[in-house]
Amino acid sequence: MMVDLFKKKIIEAGMAKKGERLLLGISGGPDSIALLHLFLGIRQELKLDLVACHFNHCLRDEADSEEQFVKNICKAAGIRFISEKKEVKKFFDGDSLEQTARNLRYDFFLKCSRETKIKKLALAHHEDDLAETVLMRIVRGAGLRGLRGFLPISRYKNITIIRPLIDTRKSVILQWLEEKELKYCVDQSNFSEEFLRNRLRLKLIPLLEELNPSIVDNLAALAQTVAIDYEFIEKAAHDLLQKIVRRHTHNCVEVDLKALDALDECMFNNVLRSAITMLKGDTRGLEARHLVEVKALVKERKRESIVDLPMAIVTKTDTRLTIEARR
Amino acid sequence: MMVDLFKKKIIEAGMAKKGERLLLGISGGPDSIALLHLFLGIRQELKLDLVACHFNHCLRDEADSEEQFVKNICKAAGIRFISEKKEVKKFFDGDSLEQTARNLRYDFFLKCSRETKIKKLALAHHEDDLAETVLMRIVRGAGLRGLRGFLPISRYKNITIIRPLIDTRKSVILQWLEEKELKYCVDQSNFSEEFLRNRLRLKLIPLLEELNPSIVDNLAALAQTVAIDYEFIEKAAHDLLQKIVRRHTHNCVEVDLKALDALDECMFNNVLRSAITMLKGDTRGLEARHLVEVKALVKERKRESIVDLPMAIVTKTDTRLTIEARR
Repeated sequence: MMVDLFKKKIIEAGMAKKGERLLLGISGGPDSIALLHLFLGIRQELKLDLVACHFNHCLRDEADSEEQFVKNICKAAGIRFISEKKEVKKFFDGDSLEQTARNLRYDFFLKCSRETKIKKLALAHHEDDLAETVLMRIVRGAGLRGLRGFLPISRYKNITIIRPLIDTRKSVILQWLEEKELKYCVDQSNFSEEFLRNRLRLKLIPLLEELNPSIVDNLAALAQTVAIDYEFIEKAAHDLLQKIVRRHTHNCVEVDLKALDALDECMFNNVLRSAITMLKGDTRGLEARHLVEVKALVKERKRESIVDLPMAIVTKTDTRLTIEARR
Repeated sequence: MMVDLFKKKIIEAGMAKKGERLLLGISGGPDSIALLHLFLGIRQELKLDLVACHFNHCLRDEADSEEQFVKNICKAAGIRFISEKKEVKKFFDGDSLEQTARNLRYDFFLKCSRETKIKKLALAHHEDDLAETVLMRIVRGAGLRGLRGFLPISRYKNITIIRPLIDTRKSVILQWLEEKELKYCVDQSNFSEEFLRNRLRLKLIPLLEELNPSIVDNLAALAQTVAIDYEFIEKAAHDLLQKIVRRHTHNCVEVDLKALDALDECMFNNVLRSAITMLKGDTRGLEARHLVEVKALVKERKRESIVDLPMAIVTKTDTRLTIEARR
């Protein structure tokens, strides 16, 4: 039953088609083991070529035996298994440990993609993960962009990431594993309060569920509707930017000052985001207060005034706003 | 100091101008008493004509003495005081008691506006209120529209509501009252867990503050950025609707089917919201699942098919989507 729903979901959402080659990110925990078995269940019918990718973070004593556990399932199922082992703690660089682990894991996925020439990666994020992510963004402070959480289909560098379990509750996954008597590894770090996510999971979400038992569904629905709305705003800003750009080199964008000044607040902010994305690939490091500074520059300050952002230098001239990327 | 900032805020945000007449909603609690004294502090300089409005909900034993308390301050300050007393519990109609109280209170404000011919009402909502409202909407389940919380300046029927304390933390208000030795009533219901808002205030927000001490600022900032983004979407949808409307009577809107079908998901949803607002004045009762049903009608179902919504009947013809208001 679950396998049929899974197949339907994959096809209807355009996540994969017959004969496609897919990378699967498999940690060994219940979610990814369910993902692996679900894909194995539809593999023959859809003629999928599956490659399991496992990243060993060396963060816990059980890490090696978990790697072996996933390897054994793949061997028995006759699918390729790629793994890499890295001591995440050695790469810890001031980001959170979770962020460091994530960066290394995604580098590994990109390497798997280059090695296998497969451009699509399936991850096991489920509805509870999505709700937690949205909540974490709210707690940390996010705008609309952050509130989207993760998407059913997204891009990371040159690979496509699909998340077929994004609509499925964690409890449904666990129940299915139990029914099918499928074994998985229990990630002990989920029981510590080491990471904000775990504190949310163990304290905040239970309290929210007391207030409203549908909270997880509501948070996931919020992420989805925000994703739809943000996509519209992002596209409108991108189109607008094209109209008011006067000059564009690899490290500098010049925008018509009068046209920029005439924009409403939403488009003003998002055209700037779009310009920085054009130069830098993303808007990392750009905060709400930076947008306020640029607004003051455009609306109030004298020409030749400058705003110094972490990723760009913004200068006002007689007729233009010049955004120059930092190296 | 606080009075100067207050005056600056009022002027810069365009909330009131010299010589204006204003209604003030004054419950007697610390927030509204601070609002009253702040307005009294700038009254002469800005030549404001102030009228205090107090609604007695009869929900607590102290209700009558609180009414008298506010009346006394107004008498001493020489401003007009209007009050009304209603047993909210008698009007309780299946909504929450809080919602019933709110409806009756706003009816009273409208009555005050008719009686005094003043079209502007100042309310004492502060930053902590805004954070709580956003959180409450998240808990109950909201889209972008709900996440806006309340706005610094908004419309309610034919009056303008201003909220000069929207950027001010509750703690700052309490500290100012203490410094100035100003007395206020303590709203006992804030210490009960009778309403969801109180449960949020007493349990959820303290837990969130453990996770991030800036959570209240972050929630208020989220409400503000969402308000800006939603305004853009709402306006874009309104403009689009004007282009694809083929016929419009007092109780029926007909929209070009092909044009509607060609819209992206964000505009599809918001053009429908806009059409229903055109007919009914608001979108009360419209849920996400209703939009999904109308989408299926437009994209998949046969002509002459119907979707039955609580506020409208939606019919698909060969070339149009007809939205007919229910009585």
